[in-house]
Amino acid sequence: MLVEMYRDMLGKKSVIRELSEFATARGREIGYENVFDYSLGNPSVPVPQAFTDEMIRLLQETDSNVLHGYSPSLTIPSVRTAVAESLKKRFGIPYEMDHIFMTSGAAGAIAHAVRMIAKAGDEILTFAPFFPEYHPYVDHAGPVLKVVPAQTDTFQINFAAFEEMLNEKTAAVLINSPNNPSGVVYSEETLTRLAQILTARSREYSHPIYLITDEPYREIVFDGKEAPCPSKFYDNTIMCYSFSKSLSIPGERIGYVAVNPACEEAKTLIQMCGQISRGIGHNCPSSIIQLAVAKCLDITADLSVYERNMNLIYDELVSLGAQVVRPGGTFYIFPKAPEEDAVAFSKKALKYDLVLVPGDSFGAPGFYRMAYCIATEKVERSLPVLRRFIRENY
Amino acid sequence: MLVEMYRDMLGKKSVIRELSEFATARGREIGYENVFDYSLGNPSVPVPQAFTDEMIRLLQETDSNVLHGYSPSLTIPSVRTAVAESLKKRFGIPYEMDHIFMTSGAAGAIAHAVRMIAKAGDEILTFAPFFPEYHPYVDHAGPVLKVVPAQTDTFQINFAAFEEMLNEKTAAVLINSPNNPSGVVYSEETLTRLAQILTARSREYSHPIYLITDEPYREIVFDGKEAPCPSKFYDNTIMCYSFSKSLSIPGERIGYVAVNPACEEAKTLIQMCGQISRGIGHNCPSSIIQLAVAKCLDITADLSVYERNMNLIYDELVSLGAQVVRPGGTFYIFPKAPEEDAVAFSKKALKYDLVLVPGDSFGAPGFYRMAYCIATEKVERSLPVLRRFIRENY
Repeated sequence: MLVEMYRDMLGKKSVIRELSEFATARGREIGYENVFDYSLGNPSVPVPQAFTDEMIRLLQETDSNVLHGYSPSLTIPSVRTAVAESLKKRFGIPYEMDHIFMTSGAAGAIAHAVRMIAKAGDEILTFAPFFPEYHPYVDHAGPVLKVVPAQTDTFQINFAAFEEMLNEKTAAVLINSPNNPSGVVYSEETLTRLAQILTARSREYSHPIYLITDEPYREIVFDGKEAPCPSKFYDNTIMCYSFSKSLSIPGERIGYVAVNPACEEAKTLIQMCGQISRGIGHNCPSSIIQLAVAKCLDITADLSVYERNMNLIYDELVSLGAQVVRPGGTFYIFPKAPEEDAVAFSKKALKYDLVLVPGDSFGAPGFYRMAYCIATEKVERSLPVLRRFIRENY
Repeated sequence: MLVEMYRDMLGKKSVIRELSEFATARGREIGYENVFDYSLGNPSVPVPQAFTDEMIRLLQETDSNVLHGYSPSLTIPSVRTAVAESLKKRFGIPYEMDHIFMTSGAAGAIAHAVRMIAKAGDEILTFAPFFPEYHPYVDHAGPVLKVVPAQTDTFQINFAAFEEMLNEKTAAVLINSPNNPSGVVYSEETLTRLAQILTARSREYSHPIYLITDEPYREIVFDGKEAPCPSKFYDNTIMCYSFSKSLSIPGERIGYVAVNPACEEAKTLIQMCGQISRGIGHNCPSSIIQLAVAKCLDITADLSVYERNMNLIYDELVSLGAQVVRPGGTFYIFPKAPEEDAVAFSKKALKYDLVLVPGDSFGAPGFYRMAYCIATEKVERSLPVLRRFIRENY
């Protein structure tokens, strides 16, 4: 009677998890400082002091029943209003409270977004390379995730493949920019063309094809740039955000869904979130965490270490002759492996205590991911090892 | 393309919510202190100082990346261990870390429990009167909730009706003791007989029928008693707990699933929780909240006000000649209305600024619920009004 789907999942160990477990075990043997663990996308920069101060202030100054009381089913109005105003100021899109729903991180946001606009039998398209958790996020909600093959020279969108895969059953397209694992930021050209195609196909199929945007890395963009905001390019956009990376608080599970005010039935979509939550058992994210992030909307942790690390690694890879797209943001880089089988490549790397994740589970075999959310000092020590590994094997 | 199920739900306003909105609006007219609002089950006693102190200590003394970092997918091991040890000590059941999964309140716990052991086509039985949110909790997960009619003289279990409704499709039985809305605690006799029937039928149908127990009111029990622990009566029990009421922190969304170690494949069930979470987008409850409750497992807020309020209201109802079962716990009482139509009765009560919830949505028409988690002073002022209302109308 145990539901077999979940039991089957238990049998399939995630490659990333296996590699991370190797790193931990190896660390016990030789000291974790000697394991060059590029496996996990775990933010490493300290949480901003302003967040900690706000948490303590709330605990000391707020009536405990108000502070820890039930959120309304659509989450805390003052928090939703603050998020709407921050987004409006930043992107010039007229968000109001009624377009915002606070969620348990981006995972919770996508769980709601998918259920709002798709049901069993529908398809949701995403673009390789993609975050493998999109499979359970989408597939367990009813629809099916279909993956458009990667445009491997740029990691922008493979439009030819995309146009072939769009069909009447397509309910939504799910994008992730800045992208995990490639580090690439979708350009204005990419988003413009994507919007044009979605508009034309929505008309052709007589139903809107929604754009769900997963944007947890929006604040980690390099070279002093801003990531183009997908909601500015396409009306029927459902933005999914998480504070996990910008504030370094992934364990607090806090983010939001922001439906573009120009989206068809925008406010109804948000009201549906309150109903969706009842069925998936979320209800609301922690009330004190909602209240604390509302005071930290326009700040971030000191994210500069990620750019420093990226430049060090990118330059080294280029000097080693690797095929690699320079990341525009995130804390990931996604080079081509020097042999066809990236799994074999990653296994060899382990002998050098280099933990690299093969691209297969991201839908891009032959590439590998390095998550460089680690200390710069460690990155610097890892580069001669990476050089030796490549020189000795390829 | 909007999913019609959720859109339909938006049309159906909850009676409890409507009444609560009336109370708020009326409060604006005549002062909220003059509205006798018995509609909402919102804990009103202050959060224990120990919880607040622990939160502040964690914020001041823990490395911020550790404190706010990702939980492992099965939630924080030290927290799971602490919960297991507390339960073991209290109930004498040999729980270990591997039997515990931390959740977003009881709603999150039930969301996981239902998905562990039931799928589309299965049935889950519950007993009237019951918490109406069980419908979305169960129905949106795939199986169907079926409601066994109430045993209205005691609000224990109507075993005759139950035995008729059990069948091969029954995957689980969902109970809530101490009970919302009746306030009744299931007796040892009730739990013994329930276990006997479940054991016999599991054998007959050649599959386990699980017992899912929703126990957020376990700490609010009157007359110095303890609520009998259902897990002690039946091996295949999945306990769902929330700290919302015991610590007065419903907005923090924290609870757990505890699978009886004697349950078939107990540890596998808990491992499945990590997979279920991926599909419903929870992942874990807030990390700081997990860590804080782990230090408050054996304390509660001062819950004595609820017993004081219950006695005042119960005595008044009895002196008014009402048919009412004396609550053994919770902060609810569920008297029979003096006319058949409890909706009409509740409407008349509003003219006296008495906000009472008709029992129809709890599966027990003709009864009404009073949630007495309000100040005793207000209860005292409400009683002459209740008396006047009954005397003038019945």
